[in-house]
Amino acid sequence: MRHVALVADRIGWEERRLIAAAGAHDLRLSWVDDGALCLGAPAAPALGDFDAVMIRSRSYTRGGLIATAAEAARVPVLNTAAAIHACENKLSLRALLRAADLPVPDFRLVLSRADFAAALAELPLPLVLKPVFGGMGKRVTLLRDADTAQSVYDYVEDLGHGFEQAALVEPFLDGGSSVRCFVAGRQLVASASFRSAGGDWRSNAALGNRHRRVAQGPEISKIVDAVVDVLGEGIYGIDLFETPDGFVVNEVNHAPAFRAVADTSELDIPTAVVRYLQEVTS
Amino acid sequence: MRHVALVADRIGWEERRLIAAAGAHDLRLSWVDDGALCLGAPAAPALGDFDAVMIRSRSYTRGGLIATAAEAARVPVLNTAAAIHACENKLSLRALLRAADLPVPDFRLVLSRADFAAALAELPLPLVLKPVFGGMGKRVTLLRDADTAQSVYDYVEDLGHGFEQAALVEPFLDGGSSVRCFVAGRQLVASASFRSAGGDWRSNAALGNRHRRVAQGPEISKIVDAVVDVLGEGIYGIDLFETPDGFVVNEVNHAPAFRAVADTSELDIPTAVVRYLQEVTS
Amino acid sequence: MRHVALVADRIGWEERRLIAAAGAHDLRLSWVDDGALCLGAPAAPALGDFDAVMIRSRSYTRGGLIATAAEAARVPVLNTAAAIHACENKLSLRALLRAADLPVPDFRLVLSRADFAAALAELPLPLVLKPVFGGMGKRVTLLRDADTAQSVYDYVEDLGHGFEQAALVEPFLDGGSSVRCFVAGRQLVASASFRSAGGDWRSNAALGNRHRRVAQGPEISKIVDAVVDVLGEGIYGIDLFETPDGFVVNEVNHAPAFRAVADTSELDIPTAVVRYLQEVTS
Amino acid sequence: MRHVALVADRIGWEERRLIAAAGAHDLRLSWVDDGALCLGAPAAPALGDFDAVMIRSRSYTRGGLIATAAEAARVPVLNTAAAIHACENKLSLRALLRAADLPVPDFRLVLSRADFAAALAELPLPLVLKPVFGGMGKRVTLLRDADTAQSVYDYVEDLGHGFEQAALVEPFLDGGSSVRCFVAGRQLVASASFRSAGGDWRSNAALGNRHRRVAQGPEISKIVDAVVDVLGEGIYGIDLFETPDGFVVNEVNHAPAFRAVADTSELDIPTAVVRYLQEVTS
Repeated sequence: MRHVALVADRIGWEERRLIAAAGAHDLRLSWVDDGALCLGAPAAPALGDFDAVMIRSRSYTRGGLIATAAEAARVPVLNTAAAIHACENKLSLRALLRAADLPVPDFRLVLSRADFAAALAELPLPLVLKPVFGGMGKRVTLLRDADTAQSVYDYVEDLGHGFEQAALVEPFLDGGSSVRCFVAGRQLVASASFRSAGGDWRSNAALGNRHRRVAQGPEISKIVDAVVDVLGEGIYGIDLFETPDGFVVNEVNHAPAFRAVADTSELDIPTAVVRYLQEVTS
Repeated sequence: MRHVALVADRIGWEERRLIAAAGAHDLRLSWVDDGALCLGAPAAPALGDFDAVMIRSRSYTRGGLIATAAEAARVPVLNTAAAIHACENKLSLRALLRAADLPVPDFRLVLSRADFAAALAELPLPLVLKPVFGGMGKRVTLLRDADTAQSVYDYVEDLGHGFEQAALVEPFLDGGSSVRCFVAGRQLVASASFRSAGGDWRSNAALGNRHRRVAQGPEISKIVDAVVDVLGEGIYGIDLFETPDGFVVNEVNHAPAFRAVADTSELDIPTAVVRYLQEVTS
Repeated sequence: MRHVALVADRIGWEERRLIAAAGAHDLRLSWVDDGALCLGAPAAPALGDFDAVMIRSRSYTRGGLIATAAEAARVPVLNTAAAIHACENKLSLRALLRAADLPVPDFRLVLSRADFAAALAELPLPLVLKPVFGGMGKRVTLLRDADTAQSVYDYVEDLGHGFEQAALVEPFLDGGSSVRCFVAGRQLVASASFRSAGGDWRSNAALGNRHRRVAQGPEISKIVDAVVDVLGEGIYGIDLFETPDGFVVNEVNHAPAFRAVADTSELDIPTAVVRYLQEVTS
Repeated sequence: MRHVALVADRIGWEERRLIAAAGAHDLRLSWVDDGALCLGAPAAPALGDFDAVMIRSRSYTRGGLIATAAEAARVPVLNTAAAIHACENKLSLRALLRAADLPVPDFRLVLSRADFAAALAELPLPLVLKPVFGGMGKRVTLLRDADTAQSVYDYVEDLGHGFEQAALVEPFLDGGSSVRCFVAGRQLVASASFRSAGGDWRSNAALGNRHRRVAQGPEISKIVDAVVDVLGEGIYGIDLFETPDGFVVNEVNHAPAFRAVADTSELDIPTAVVRYLQEVTS
């Protein structure tokens, strides 16, 4: 039986369902603690005996490093290190997508107070300030007012270290809603629309907001196809914003949660993931 | 001639004027780098030969530590370690002033996300979020909207370490203006009103806002007297907010800038400070 | 029945025993989460109805702030805010003890790379580098070699924020052993000697090292008495180093663990604490 | 005349020489502040009119981000974003070099305390602890003793945020010396040997150590060629360690300083760089 490592910081809701679905489909999926791998030796004892590695670390810093080290040991990794690196750096992702003529939001890269002031001068309010590196919607802040923006940026400048000081400023596009597309391999397994529940401006799936199933029209399918062409096959959560000019790709999550999306879908997401794992390891 | 150490990270505008005023009044005032003291030995070689030490570190972490170490070497220090510790911890200061029946803003101590949510539930918007430790108005943020407050707090939670996670939430009182009182010894040397210049919501003196001289009515004098009773004589910048019920004490700065206040005053602030130094060292 | 709040981040081994001992002695002791107090309102609803507050937060930043806010609401607090502030700042504590002619280790206050270089030049190796603020022996590092000391200091300089950059450098005194004295009120309840278990150079009680009961000779009693004179009655873990010239006071812990000490003692520490709580609240 | 942007945080010794050499060779090289670019708009106004961009930010976080954004605006960038990303992540670089059968030091990827303990168990002392992301030898620490290693790691665990917690542990190989090779395009312009000056264990060029020219034998040339095959042509500082089995590649610096190397070389490094810039822009 094929044996796949599920590398994560813990076994959560999604991981339990993936392990169960694997068992029902003749695949062994075993949790491996992402903080106890000690990778680096060429043979990678912690991972070398698996037929593949699926990375679901919630840490936004561990995924890319573990994938790099696992690939160096010639173990197939989902997602690839290249895909994870592209996803975890929101600037890299936008550059890649834009180069492939995919629609992305306008943005400014903010590395300093001067950049931040210039971004505020170039783009009209309301704006979104978000870290280049990070996940689950954390530190994604809406700037409605110019006169408080600088005091919010104080936190980036005073408390941010290293990569934490890298931010994007972008127009506020989603009008309170976004579409999350769950992809396994090349297949769009499910898609759902998220809308802010009112208490928080963010419509992020991680924040427990209201959601409903959305039809997978040809526009969404075409975008998803093109994103997979850029990143390679894998397991992705692709977040879209709907704008008057059509959808734009906001982010791609390389270790996507799917609990909320699963509620809206008739499709069985864990089974779709497991089938893709079987394909990869066969 | 009496010789006083001016302990600071650099010689800035204020320090140059203090050194010049000392020279004109028969006092020697010498800059000593606050990052090259290596205090701790009982005799405190870096400071032990001075008749007194005046601390003007802009770092909000160095002042109290240096004052503590200098006092341990039995050198008179302005301000006292006790006064600096009271001023640099905005919670301690409010507790001390409240215990002396001085009017201070209402506030909540926020040590966690749960505290922050409770503070938002207890106090009406708009609110001010500020670090317990910190200076120059940095990270003092205005929260106008409940739906963006949590994403601002993400920065405290994700990027703040240790004491940086301690914050106060308080009602927004100043309506865009505050009064800064400069005190030397017990004397109210000058006072000025600061008003936000429009680009930033803060009326903080450090942010280069508009200011004008204010009359030193009996209400202000009484408050200043009472603050000095609590903290002991020293060199202070006392910040007041005017409310419908009268003034409240917002903060006391233990190493106050005075460039902006000096512009509004006929009094010569450096000379007032130097006279106080002479008194202390005589 | 008297009702005392046990303010802590969790109910651990010590807290369970304290709550049980209270129940056996006609005192109600209730855990209150130190991250859900939202203190600040004059009446302090989270704590105002208790007869006293005992603080056992393991966070080295929360204790002093919560004690300050609780005292402002006129609730008796163990330990007092003044005692906690003295204990949590290793520089303040040494200054206070030295002023009372208590023996403390020599040390240098290191606020910068220049201070660090000066301390290495003034004091002979081996030296200990430790944070001014912090607990449980964390970041307390032994510097055996001059040629690696600067690369260790890089971590303080590059990664430390604010108060984390404040450090002490001091001679390595304990020869691998230290004495922990557990105090309730004025009473020396138990004392134990800790010795490094070999894997780590530190003899800190928090690190699970070897320990044995020590006789409470008159020298230790005299020091403990004098420390309580300085800090006021309370619940303390006083750490001593034995040197050829007698004991010196290394640190005082204001929320001391007592699991390891309890193993070495015939005295019942939880009961001694509870009796002291009864005394305070009667 | 071709116009190249020299993107950096400041004009230092190297940048002055590069600008002068460009002037002497009919190329205009203009400093552009790396904190005032506000990149992101498709046309990249801050850089779009240059014929090429050379990145010399000393910040280890800015180079890759700026290169990514500049390439997205279709401006030729030295080094390429791919090369910078490979160099700034010491794990990625080792994986790439190892995949190309280039000799690299053995290492373990340390993401947690458990990884650190495992690395200490797997590899013999002395070991080097270094950040995955970082430059100029900062935080590269020599671990001679097992009993102090955990207290050094406390700093990574307690003070490191996000990517700062990613570290490598590797055998101590250099015996106090390393070889720095300066490359422009494919050409090995100069190479020098660095040896610790005694005060600090590190032989890093950034730390002002003793250095001397080294002969560029065929072994070094072959390694340099192979590294350029992996990373693409560019401007690199390739650091080698000499071992009993030959040279291994330790790091590649993507914005190399060359002051110390220049002292040991008859070749004119700034002119070699400028000639490469001319080639790229012609």
